[in-house]
Amino acid sequence: MTTAPEQTTDLYPTRGATEVITPRQDPVVWSRPGEDGPFQPSELADYERDGFFAIDELLTGQEVAHYRAELDRLVNDPVVRADPRAIVEPRSQDVRSVFEVHRVSEVFAELVRDPRVVGRARQILGSDVYVHQSRINVKPGFGASGFYWHSDFETWHAEDGLPRMRTVSVSIALTENYDTNGGLMIMPGSHRSFLGCAGETPKDNYKKSLQMQDAGTPSDEALTELADRHGIRLFTGKPGSATWFDCNAMHGSGDNITPYPRSNVFIVFNSVENAAVEPYAAPVRRPEYIGARDFTPVR
Amino acid sequence: MTTAPEQTTDLYPTRGATEVITPRQDPVVWSRPGEDGPFQPSELADYERDGFFAIDELLTGQEVAHYRAELDRLVNDPVVRADPRAIVEPRSQDVRSVFEVHRVSEVFAELVRDPRVVGRARQILGSDVYVHQSRINVKPGFGASGFYWHSDFETWHAEDGLPRMRTVSVSIALTENYDTNGGLMIMPGSHRSFLGCAGETPKDNYKKSLQMQDAGTPSDEALTELADRHGIRLFTGKPGSATWFDCNAMHGSGDNITPYPRSNVFIVFNSVENAAVEPYAAPVRRPEYIGARDFTPVR
Repeated sequence: MTTAPEQTTDLYPTRGATEVITPRQDPVVWSRPGEDGPFQPSELADYERDGFFAIDELLTGQEVAHYRAELDRLVNDPVVRADPRAIVEPRSQDVRSVFEVHRVSEVFAELVRDPRVVGRARQILGSDVYVHQSRINVKPGFGASGFYWHSDFETWHAEDGLPRMRTVSVSIALTENYDTNGGLMIMPGSHRSFLGCAGETPKDNYKKSLQMQDAGTPSDEALTELADRHGIRLFTGKPGSATWFDCNAMHGSGDNITPYPRSNVFIVFNSVENAAVEPYAAPVRRPEYIGARDFTPVR
Repeated sequence: MTTAPEQTTDLYPTRGATEVITPRQDPVVWSRPGEDGPFQPSELADYERDGFFAIDELLTGQEVAHYRAELDRLVNDPVVRADPRAIVEPRSQDVRSVFEVHRVSEVFAELVRDPRVVGRARQILGSDVYVHQSRINVKPGFGASGFYWHSDFETWHAEDGLPRMRTVSVSIALTENYDTNGGLMIMPGSHRSFLGCAGETPKDNYKKSLQMQDAGTPSDEALTELADRHGIRLFTGKPGSATWFDCNAMHGSGDNITPYPRSNVFIVFNSVENAAVEPYAAPVRRPEYIGARDFTPVR
């Protein structure tokens, strides 16, 4: 066995033959106590404890209208639709997501640079930050699927090569999140342990072989234990509300049979001191519009 | 055209070429004001207005334990599993529902006869009542599907031949309904108009032809209008809580990715003065364990 360079030491093993729980090796809030920023100290303490912090009104009604207009423009622009960064639903041919939206759109680039946004990311991560991923999402109603439980960091570590847990996401609502339209669910406190997922279907487990488990998907047993320990919080909020959450928070969302779509902007900030290396558990890097390789700090 | 006998006059046309809205032709509460029963007058007034009434504790904790034990016994009984009235999930081979459970189980027969249960049904329907359908449901977590929006009466009228809206359901929770595990959603007030559904895919509508609409399924347009007018209420509650709801309430449920299953008993009472005739919009009757043909009143 050769000695790997320090930066590729794998603190968070995943995608092996079995599920493995590793205690978190990293702080949750990286800035020094008392450092200036938009978050109040008590808010940072809540974020540290829960792995998330929700803000009722990050954007004003006027600003929401501005960003929604830009979202509408983007999803209806034939040039955007033809771009590989646009995800088009096969059946309806509607644009569902536009990745790297802070490069596709100057309007969303400006949102990323907004001190209320990047300022909070810097405060949590205790350094300059760059955008690891950004996208707008249009989740329609009438039966759109949700996302199953996962830790983003599990994927970003395994497939994008983020070494440490020094990454934060913000989801900014551009439509109302009701208690009925498939909003974000997080298990509070789940960010304190890393669930390394089984990448192979165990041969000795007939249940698993009947119910094929995708790489990066937690087992029923692990989810039961996590939910029993931490509970599940559903986020509701007006347009303009925002949820900041740690890269290792276990989260997911249900489907949406209501007529009310959920549109949001999603920005992932990573510390410049945590730049991506090679994937820890994947044969190739994902495309740069999904996992950035340009580590230029947001200014 | 020959004259049909009075009882088969179709007050609520459905499954035609187009969606048709018919104002409700029937009362919601059929008993005379002041008639004795478990519901308070103000509760009946709420039921009349909303099309539902939720009871926090219909069953005590001890009773819930009793009924859950019987549910567990039934879903694990090989004789029950082999019965056509048991619905077995193909993948897991688990029993998901047992229909006509008040005939399969003396314990659930006793629940149907409980004055807190049948007494409320009589009070709403203003007559003796019989069981049109009963079942226990075990809805697992980890991604179990929900039910799309529908009015039960639409099906019971079209496929079982219930002539009038004189039918009430009660769903009694045997596990906790959280805001996250795919609970019942109802549009309050939707019971006041009948949405006759399109049974054929319109030839002139390319969207519908891409997105095949099942018979009995409301269109996106109708659901949007109903939800905008009435809103959507999500029901949460402890084990032992119950939701009474009108046969024509527009309702549905989302999927359930939490680890927490939802088990409940579901009983449909119909007035003996509203006994089933031939289906209004189906070539054959459904089996009797789904839509009863024995109209003996519950005593």
